[in-house]
Amino acid sequence: MIYITRRECFSSAHRLFNPVLSDSGNFEIYGKCSNPNWHGHNYIMYVTVRGEVNSETGMVMNMKLLGDIVRRLVTDKLDHHNLNTDVDFLQGVITTSENIAIAAWNQLADEIKKAGAELYKIKIAETENNYVEYYGN
Amino acid sequence: MIYITRRECFSSAHRLFNPVLSDSGNFEIYGKCSNPNWHGHNYIMYVTVRGEVNSETGMVMNMKLLGDIVRRLVTDKLDHHNLNTDVDFLQGVITTSENIAIAAWNQLADEIKKAGAELYKIKIAETENNYVEYYGN
Amino acid sequence: MIYITRRECFSSAHRLFNPVLSDSGNFEIYGKCSNPNWHGHNYIMYVTVRGEVNSETGMVMNMKLLGDIVRRLVTDKLDHHNLNTDVDFLQGVITTSENIAIAAWNQLADEIKKAGAELYKIKIAETENNYVEYYGN
Amino acid sequence: MIYITRRECFSSAHRLFNPVLSDSGNFEIYGKCSNPNWHGHNYIMYVTVRGEVNSETGMVMNMKLLGDIVRRLVTDKLDHHNLNTDVDFLQGVITTSENIAIAAWNQLADEIKKAGAELYKIKIAETENNYVEYYGN
Amino acid sequence: MIYITRRECFSSAHRLFNPVLSDSGNFEIYGKCSNPNWHGHNYIMYVTVRGEVNSETGMVMNMKLLGDIVRRLVTDKLDHHNLNTDVDFLQGVITTSENIAIAAWNQLADEIKKAGAELYKIKIAETENNYVEYYGN
Amino acid sequence: MIYITRRECFSSAHRLFNPVLSDSGNFEIYGKCSNPNWHGHNYIMYVTVRGEVNSETGMVMNMKLLGDIVRRLVTDKLDHHNLNTDVDFLQGVITTSENIAIAAWNQLADEIKKAGAELYKIKIAETENNYVEYYGN
Repeated sequence: MIYITRRECFSSAHRLFNPVLSDSGNFEIYGKCSNPNWHGHNYIMYVTVRGEVNSETGMVMNMKLLGDIVRRLVTDKLDHHNLNTDVDFLQGVITTSENIAIAAWNQLADEIKKAGAELYKIKIAETENNYVEYYGN
Repeated sequence: MIYITRRECFSSAHRLFNPVLSDSGNFEIYGKCSNPNWHGHNYIMYVTVRGEVNSETGMVMNMKLLGDIVRRLVTDKLDHHNLNTDVDFLQGVITTSENIAIAAWNQLADEIKKAGAELYKIKIAETENNYVEYYGN
Repeated sequence: MIYITRRECFSSAHRLFNPVLSDSGNFEIYGKCSNPNWHGHNYIMYVTVRGEVNSETGMVMNMKLLGDIVRRLVTDKLDHHNLNTDVDFLQGVITTSENIAIAAWNQLADEIKKAGAELYKIKIAETENNYVEYYGN
Repeated sequence: MIYITRRECFSSAHRLFNPVLSDSGNFEIYGKCSNPNWHGHNYIMYVTVRGEVNSETGMVMNMKLLGDIVRRLVTDKLDHHNLNTDVDFLQGVITTSENIAIAAWNQLADEIKKAGAELYKIKIAETENNYVEYYGN
Repeated sequence: MIYITRRECFSSAHRLFNPVLSDSGNFEIYGKCSNPNWHGHNYIMYVTVRGEVNSETGMVMNMKLLGDIVRRLVTDKLDHHNLNTDVDFLQGVITTSENIAIAAWNQLADEIKKAGAELYKIKIAETENNYVEYYGN
Repeated sequence: MIYITRRECFSSAHRLFNPVLSDSGNFEIYGKCSNPNWHGHNYIMYVTVRGEVNSETGMVMNMKLLGDIVRRLVTDKLDHHNLNTDVDFLQGVITTSENIAIAAWNQLADEIKKAGAELYKIKIAETENNYVEYYGN
């Protein structure tokens, strides 16, 4: 069993905001991250999959194919977009990195299985000081 | 003469957009960077000042003071804000890194002179692949 | 279950030295790391906690609060100090990164539990070539 | 139990190529990575070992010794060499990062055991966008 | 006048070798960098151009166009190739970073002028420890 | 004319302290950087030299030789030492990065001239947020 990881980046606007709460309630929880006119980040996503090494290719799966899947199903939909308003698979989601990681997992798990590997981890770094990791339920 | 540089970061939303042009005209020039619902970046700003080394302190100027000035006059106004709508010193400016660097220079030059040094360069990196540098007119 | 990680930095002096051993005994084990007049590092500490995502906030716990806890209980006591002489929770400890990680764990585990999450890992990088990881006993 | 990691780098030429397949068969699998005149990388290898902290030294094992072992048995044989043609422990191996990681594991596991620790993970980054991790079978 | 910089990467094999000299003469000058079976690097190239900011666009020139030019004329020809044998504009050149930088300058200067800016600097980093910079003679 | 740069690192203890001033006077200027029991950093030094490319070698000067000179005359004397007490060429100097850069210049300029190149710049980064550059008087 080997684990392989592909890095993909996206530059997006977002705002932490729970519509159930008032503006001041949101500010109390999220501080400046709830500013109404949006802010943004260069997000870095690391997608780790695992599997046996194929003896004919020496690979778990093709890194280029893995990158293609991640971009098509996830990062092309996020990059240069607003995470709160523009992304089909984030509708109704508070756009914390935790929730983005879970949503990305749900976008990717089946397609990576079809490609012959198993999704193991989604890691998202929002800044150089903060990152989240999700391994599936 | 010694040159000292302070790094400060800000995470902001923006959109490249010239109001004189149509939406399609903007898209032709800026591509996805003109997407209407904003996107964003973790910008990294490097402010370089120069001066003689003070023999009593061994410093050109205090790095902490330099950081305080940069944050107060520039990055606190940009961080977790929308560069197109929220920033007093960017009103009416197309928010390319080039223009942000020039505007930051104009915010900082006098205050750094008062602190006994000379502003030499503003460098702004928008992503790991792109940066701009401005040395004053 | 989601894992979130906060990075905090500290710049400290230290010396690897076991007082039970002679100077030459220390040099044999630690080499230049036992030089008597101290040396130092820009340490980077990564604190990982885990928990369920709170459905109201979309977060495991607030990253800002996590950073506040780490700085208050650990890195503010280490930063710009001498790890061998100045730190209450490192008294009598050989200041290897291994021991710093274990001591930091003991400082943090309860306070993070009070904040509703579970401490999972302390990672400390002493240089770009070396790091240690501790997951609790 | 503590985990310690040592980084070592090597700059090598290689080509992804399965001699059982035709040139076009190789190109179909590996694309430009199978170009016949080689290409190359600055590989970064992270070797993680684990063990109890020795109470006399405060260390799992000496990081310097770990680096010496990794360089002697692995990276000195790879650095500034051709991975396909020059390396005794890679003969007959398709030089994917997956296979390099497995081969490095087999070179290192016993020697690290003799040094009193247990090999836990080999991580190899081929570029800033791709890395593999191997934890032993 | 503003300076803008685009980063492009290429992963290539090469060997430092002057055909006028014997193998031992080459080894004396270049050491392991002259190993006959090639080695390789992840090169990082930074191309800096300068010009006035266009008031309609807020840009010196489009960063995307700059990247397209650099890839088409330089890095696509170098990436996943052998610098000594595969590159039209490096024929007969000892493939030091110095010479690659000069050759890249000659490839790029005219095309960047046609795009309305002026080539200012080529920087090439061969490893994290070494880089060269060329400003045109 | 080409510029080549070599990176060398050193991990040192120091304290900002002017013996002419009282403890409180030092604290007023330097803050926590004057803490009496020392602190420390992983310093990164970049030494840039320039010269014509030698047509026989394709190099300005050998990067390995440049590294050897920098380590022998500067960084071996700083690494794992106390900058205030242990370094012959820093006696009586307030150990700001500014002063270390100037002192390193004086150590290196002649020896690099003997090697056939010209010292152009010393850059020292004390942390990821601060660096200084010195180009000679």
